[in-house]
Amino acid sequence: MLRTAVCAVLFLGALPSPAATSQGHVSVILLGATGDLARKYLWQGLFQLYLDHASGGHSFTFHGAALTAPERGQRLMFDVLKKLSCPPDEPPDRCAVLKDQFLRLSQYHQLNTAENYTALNTEIEMLLRQEGLKEAGRIFYFSVPPFAYTDIARHINSSCRPPPGAWLRVVLEKPFGHDLESARELAAELAGFFREEEMYRVDHYLGKQAIAHILPFRDQNRQFLDPIWNRHHVERVEIVLKETVDAKGRTSFYEQYGVIRDVLQNHLTEALLFLTMELPGNVSSAGEVLQRKLQGFQSLRGLGKGSAVLGQYAAYGGQVREELQRAQGYVSTTPTFAGVLIHSDSLRWEGVPFLLTSGKALDERVGYVRVLFKNRAYCPQSGTLRDAGSSQCKAKQIIFYIGHGALNTPAVLVSRNLFKPVMPASSWKEAAFQPELHVFGQPLSDYYVYSPMRERDAYSVLISSIYHGRKDFFITTENLLASWEFWTPLLDSISHQSPRLYPGGVENQHLLDFEMVGGELAFALAEPIELLQPKAPTPSDYKTIQAKYRQSPLVSAWAEELVSQLASDMERAASSAVARAGHFHLALSGGSSPVVLFQQLARHHYAFPWRYTHIWLVDERCVPLADPESNFFSLHDHLLQSVRVPYFNIHPMPVHLNQRLCVEEDRGTELYAKEIAALVANASFDLVLLGMGADGHTASLFPHSENGLEGAQTVVLTESPVKPHQRMSLSLPLINRARKVFVLVLGKGKHNITSLISRVGHEPRKWPISGVSPSSGRLVWYVDYEALLG
Amino acid sequence: MLRTAVCAVLFLGALPSPAATSQGHVSVILLGATGDLARKYLWQGLFQLYLDHASGGHSFTFHGAALTAPERGQRLMFDVLKKLSCPPDEPPDRCAVLKDQFLRLSQYHQLNTAENYTALNTEIEMLLRQEGLKEAGRIFYFSVPPFAYTDIARHINSSCRPPPGAWLRVVLEKPFGHDLESARELAAELAGFFREEEMYRVDHYLGKQAIAHILPFRDQNRQFLDPIWNRHHVERVEIVLKETVDAKGRTSFYEQYGVIRDVLQNHLTEALLFLTMELPGNVSSAGEVLQRKLQGFQSLRGLGKGSAVLGQYAAYGGQVREELQRAQGYVSTTPTFAGVLIHSDSLRWEGVPFLLTSGKALDERVGYVRVLFKNRAYCPQSGTLRDAGSSQCKAKQIIFYIGHGALNTPAVLVSRNLFKPVMPASSWKEAAFQPELHVFGQPLSDYYVYSPMRERDAYSVLISSIYHGRKDFFITTENLLASWEFWTPLLDSISHQSPRLYPGGVENQHLLDFEMVGGELAFALAEPIELLQPKAPTPSDYKTIQAKYRQSPLVSAWAEELVSQLASDMERAASSAVARAGHFHLALSGGSSPVVLFQQLARHHYAFPWRYTHIWLVDERCVPLADPESNFFSLHDHLLQSVRVPYFNIHPMPVHLNQRLCVEEDRGTELYAKEIAALVANASFDLVLLGMGADGHTASLFPHSENGLEGAQTVVLTESPVKPHQRMSLSLPLINRARKVFVLVLGKGKHNITSLISRVGHEPRKWPISGVSPSSGRLVWYVDYEALLG
Repeated sequence: MLRTAVCAVLFLGALPSPAATSQGHVSVILLGATGDLARKYLWQGLFQLYLDHASGGHSFTFHGAALTAPERGQRLMFDVLKKLSCPPDEPPDRCAVLKDQFLRLSQYHQLNTAENYTALNTEIEMLLRQEGLKEAGRIFYFSVPPFAYTDIARHINSSCRPPPGAWLRVVLEKPFGHDLESARELAAELAGFFREEEMYRVDHYLGKQAIAHILPFRDQNRQFLDPIWNRHHVERVEIVLKETVDAKGRTSFYEQYGVIRDVLQNHLTEALLFLTMELPGNVSSAGEVLQRKLQGFQSLRGLGKGSAVLGQYAAYGGQVREELQRAQGYVSTTPTFAGVLIHSDSLRWEGVPFLLTSGKALDERVGYVRVLFKNRAYCPQSGTLRDAGSSQCKAKQIIFYIGHGALNTPAVLVSRNLFKPVMPASSWKEAAFQPELHVFGQPLSDYYVYSPMRERDAYSVLISSIYHGRKDFFITTENLLASWEFWTPLLDSISHQSPRLYPGGVENQHLLDFEMVGGELAFALAEPIELLQPKAPTPSDYKTIQAKYRQSPLVSAWAEELVSQLASDMERAASSAVARAGHFHLALSGGSSPVVLFQQLARHHYAFPWRYTHIWLVDERCVPLADPESNFFSLHDHLLQSVRVPYFNIHPMPVHLNQRLCVEEDRGTELYAKEIAALVANASFDLVLLGMGADGHTASLFPHSENGLEGAQTVVLTESPVKPHQRMSLSLPLINRARKVFVLVLGKGKHNITSLISRVGHEPRKWPISGVSPSSGRLVWYVDYEALLG
Repeated sequence: MLRTAVCAVLFLGALPSPAATSQGHVSVILLGATGDLARKYLWQGLFQLYLDHASGGHSFTFHGAALTAPERGQRLMFDVLKKLSCPPDEPPDRCAVLKDQFLRLSQYHQLNTAENYTALNTEIEMLLRQEGLKEAGRIFYFSVPPFAYTDIARHINSSCRPPPGAWLRVVLEKPFGHDLESARELAAELAGFFREEEMYRVDHYLGKQAIAHILPFRDQNRQFLDPIWNRHHVERVEIVLKETVDAKGRTSFYEQYGVIRDVLQNHLTEALLFLTMELPGNVSSAGEVLQRKLQGFQSLRGLGKGSAVLGQYAAYGGQVREELQRAQGYVSTTPTFAGVLIHSDSLRWEGVPFLLTSGKALDERVGYVRVLFKNRAYCPQSGTLRDAGSSQCKAKQIIFYIGHGALNTPAVLVSRNLFKPVMPASSWKEAAFQPELHVFGQPLSDYYVYSPMRERDAYSVLISSIYHGRKDFFITTENLLASWEFWTPLLDSISHQSPRLYPGGVENQHLLDFEMVGGELAFALAEPIELLQPKAPTPSDYKTIQAKYRQSPLVSAWAEELVSQLASDMERAASSAVARAGHFHLALSGGSSPVVLFQQLARHHYAFPWRYTHIWLVDERCVPLADPESNFFSLHDHLLQSVRVPYFNIHPMPVHLNQRLCVEEDRGTELYAKEIAALVANASFDLVLLGMGADGHTASLFPHSENGLEGAQTVVLTESPVKPHQRMSLSLPLINRARKVFVLVLGKGKHNITSLISRVGHEPRKWPISGVSPSSGRLVWYVDYEALLG
């Protein structure tokens, strides 16, 4: 680690500030000045900053710092500086002069101990005093591994803060943690040293010109986008970063992180949010953008195991074993390829698939954000003509082309049959490519194509933004944590999943093709190895069995099959009730088992006559309806939101009257009983769906309690042994008046009670479920194999 | 019309029935035996029937009938019969023998007067007696113009019914009316003569093999289609019949009917229903199919003017003037091309566009039903590879190819990356075409392609179905009227609309391309003539004006612009309330003006924070909530169904308590007041939306009534001068506590009151609206130009 500290003062007296009147002095301190990132991008970015601002405004000094001893560090650093290149649009003479000045303004520091930092601080202060300059601010750029962050931050905070009136900006490079917890810890630590507005967390994708232009583009093209930037018009969105390189030489980092943490959690997520967030009134206001972005995160549907497909290039394992000296049998499950399906549940985007994809060792290096619109045209003339000129029948898309690939430049492409976009003439120009070049299935001549007036490296853009204090190009703590909150459940759920192996390069062929199936992602082709195995049994090979349980029909199958059978039987009951009587009165139970049933009904039963269905509750907890504990809340969440039961046909139990819960004198039970009497002929529900508790309770009728087991009262208040204790429930006599009663029992946890109840007689006081026995209706048991067989 | 009647008995003694034991005799009477349809299709169909059944089952006689005198009619008819062709799969020897028999079994009758029919009947009876045959049934095929239907039907009913035990089948050819009313009349007339089960209304598309196979295909491929035959997977559906011929020589028919009545109302609608209807348990049951089909019609969203684009080929007008001897200035508005956008509001199909298109003088003769699925795959390898082999990234479609076009045969095509369909091996075979042939944007090798084992003409199929009594191939009265009920509003609304002129053939180019815009259809290109005119002003050229009205801000514009401005202002108010307080309490008025506002909010304001919005009613009529008269019902229909306000946040007025309406002692007003007090801080709504009646009323506060104008009561019962008289309303003092009050006034009918109210002071007793004056909130008037300027 850091050793001795010697401040190598290479400083050269007069500060060459060509500006006659300096507005103050800015010190830039680059920590990790001889590392990879600094060599490749940061020094060049700082030089560009100097080129842009040398002729006015502030004066500068540049301080490279590292662990290396002064002489060697200085030599290494100046080797880098000497190689800085002049941008093509810069007059060579001016550039040469300025490069010379830049070198003179730069010095190397070994920074390790507290004393080193104090010395640096003193030096900056002395210099400013000598030159009679007012200090404007200091930029500390952390280009160091994350484990070094805290120490450095502490030193800066205690020794290197500029005097009051001058600003401090610290620039942080990812990784910013490994998951939500570690990101929180790191953020909390940093918050002990810096204020939020002092921190500039870099996601260099925000400096990519095409990505940085997404929000301005949406803003400047509101007139065209307002009607179409929504689920009614957008077919799908692809956010893609493909690399040809692999992780060789970087496995010590990569093996810990993998593709999702390396690319998706940060770069691609930021692009996603720029697309999905609602536009703030002012897209240049970092605060407004942040608020909308955070709301955008809130709308994202949670990810599960099925949201992703994962791959690993075949050579990766060997590289890890070699570079990290792992045993021959070591198997890495770190993904180097991922496709992730994301949905936003906002009204704007509901149902639109956002596909995020990235991988190493692919066939092409390219990055893009592609918004594909639904094709809403029909062209009656025959096929050949459909491809001509301005046809509305061609695909409509907007592409933010990040770079590389066929175009090899950042670009914005808009299909000509969509609209001619408004682009800022000062920074983007209509680009001329060979029109026969094909991108995204169409010749380039089908698009309006814009490329930047001046192509700028992301780090130059970001360094300039830091200098100008534009925080909208950086990741705030809230933004960061929202992203980790979104990604961590997926990362956890796949942490032991084996990725599909792929050979790498063009040989991957269709091995990584994936598709959306029922809201999840799956590779389109089976693993080659699986093709050799005998055909796996399909669900229909497991037949549901039909038998008797307590003298009534029993349907049994594995849970999934059982629920699907039950849902079909319910639809059949509903259709025949509607055909017979014009409506269907359905009473539903709470609990967890029905949730899968509700989802099945919502997603697969389009012919269910919801419009003519009345929804009643079998039982309810005495909590407000909008409380997540309430049975109604769960029913609302999993079923009612997705189907179209008229408001008037929904009958929650009145547990909440006069701002209080289940108070007898409010007579909620009577109210519900009256409502049933008024609407349900003979108070005979068409179908009552029940569950069975491990203690033999059903509805909210519990063992050893008389309430609701007999008598004329049809709706009763009861006490549950578990919280919340107070309940409202249909009575056993009312349940037994139903035309049909279905009892759903799922899971191993119900095996004992299932066995027990199969043997006992009519003993509702002990086991209320044993009292279910429709007087003239039909009772059917739906018990899954786990509950039945244990 | 029909003149003299002579029964030309050409009958030849022995009935050549090769079957040893006849199961009885069938007489087929073809009315219009020498007409176009009979020449082209019907006799061939009857001959095919004979070929199929000569060797077993019933014995036959065939009776051609027409208005023509016997000798000439007979000659004409036998000229047709002699040309009957033998099907390719029939051994020529057998066919020649059977053709000879068929000719001998056929005779011509002139049918005009009642006596002619009686004579025909006698003749059939005599023949059967002579031959000792039992009568099985009679088929009367009406191949005559519709004006002749009633007379013929009356004669058949009174003179030609077979004896008890034998069946009567009458076959009717379209047109079956001109609109709903005329179709009802015709149906009622026919019902006076025939029972429903005796009538076989032909839509010869139901005999097209590809169309006839839609339902069996859906049934046999349930395992593949069940998960994808819905709005989540289907991108769009095209139902297309393109013709190259024009209407020359047929304008006397065509000018009355046009393309929608000729093709869309019947053929394409039947195909539409086969696709959209829920599958019955048994697809061969005509009754079950009919029920599902009628339900399918119920789900179709009503058509309006904007649902269609219409064209007319340029030469049509001249053809009409010439053939119908119209004056030189006569302009026909009969469409010869139509594209119609249809939506089904069923849960299965909601949002999926069904495009029905047909036209004459187009570039190609072809008919197809194309179901295009959403592309749900992503293929990470680069462009070139995406087109290879089995890629999931290719389009997925199912096509029922009716005939002609590139394939020139009926066919069923299923994309190979979708599934390999189950096809009945007895009637469909995998077809071999040149694989490089392209259809629907893909080489034929991308599809599984099936063609019929034996290509059969639609009329042969239908005649066989009539013979077998299979009613599922025919249009029942209910089906017919449901279709007319669906189409008539569109036909009415476009009856005076000028269709776009198109040159015809390949020259049409992109002139007929159309696209869906905001739920409507529009041609993609402007009329060429419009291109010469100066650019029409866009909506944003009409600025909304901002001024003062009654000392408060006034926003005015044309209605559409005004409503869109109001909706935006509401969204802004909602967002700021949610940002400030976490929720937004919005009180909405009833009436017709808000309906457009509700639609605007539902369709264009995706960022509206519905999840945090509470919906209250400003006033309500004392009718049940589910009554279409209720304000809540309209709000539910136009807004709440489309957005996601949680059930718990919806607060209808409790006008219906204890099964009675607005009874004081049920204390609904108190209940609502309490609910407001409990949830709305200070009982101060964030926004109250009001209207203004032509009598100066607002909310349900009417002139010359004191209720609700002052005092502590926040919710009151009032009396309206118009029905329903009883109302519940927020009081003026409560309204005036709101943070914001917006008053929306639309239409010429409000001009007088708008002028009046601008001049009066605070006189709520005379004009309740004049009492609206928020104590500390903000009042804004939204008055459209028509209301403001008259």
